[in-house]
Amino acid sequence: MNISHIEHIGIAVKNLDETVKYYENVLGLKCYAVEEVKDQKVKTAFFMVGQTKIELLESTDPEGPVGKFIEKKGEGVHHMAFAVDGVASSLAEVESKGVQLIDKAPRKGAEGLNIAFLHPKSTFGVLTELCEKPKD
Amino acid sequence: MNISHIEHIGIAVKNLDETVKYYENVLGLKCYAVEEVKDQKVKTAFFMVGQTKIELLESTDPEGPVGKFIEKKGEGVHHMAFAVDGVASSLAEVESKGVQLIDKAPRKGAEGLNIAFLHPKSTFGVLTELCEKPKD
Repeated sequence: MNISHIEHIGIAVKNLDETVKYYENVLGLKCYAVEEVKDQKVKTAFFMVGQTKIELLESTDPEGPVGKFIEKKGEGVHHMAFAVDGVASSLAEVESKGVQLIDKAPRKGAEGLNIAFLHPKSTFGVLTELCEKPKD
Repeated sequence: MNISHIEHIGIAVKNLDETVKYYENVLGLKCYAVEEVKDQKVKTAFFMVGQTKIELLESTDPEGPVGKFIEKKGEGVHHMAFAVDGVASSLAEVESKGVQLIDKAPRKGAEGLNIAFLHPKSTFGVLTELCEKPKD
């Protein structure tokens, strides 16, 4: 697997508007996009920090993955996403090395990326996402 | 405050050697340093991923901050560190905006950086570190 950089850090928050204010007014970062990802039952806000994005995630449903995460662990970092060259081939490679997959094949995520998640039971506690821009 | 990039992501793990093997053999990253930070009661391993480091943290003492974190929340992302221009001035700025500080003044962290932590109660659940290379 060829990882180029950390594409984004996903952070579970209870109130997107309040948290965006903190990231903008206290940390001095600029929110450049807000997007709802219905599939994942979240509303997201994006910030660019060097080559890595911060993706704030507010659950739109207590039964969604981010809602359950906050109920169990509270607000905090929810997942780490690596930019890779080839999500499908990377999934096959890590599965052959014993990693449990959440997504057996790439699917569409926020910002139109091809994404897939690895199960945190296999990744020493960190919900891990692989992603890449779709080829034109 | 002027944040240039995410300097590192700190990840709490139970067994440093086992986790280093996963990051190297499955994710294909290269551990370039192992360091004990006695002050923080941790043994650390570093990987470079683009412009951001991954810092794995194994507690050397169940009563240390990483040991307590794992007991409460399990393995996972422990903190996020921003590279800033001026840790001391950034601390003053965020404190004036109501953020609770863990470190009132910069201190020495891993790799000789000047660092300080902001309290996760004030940062929407993410233990946040500010850091910079010492000026020569």
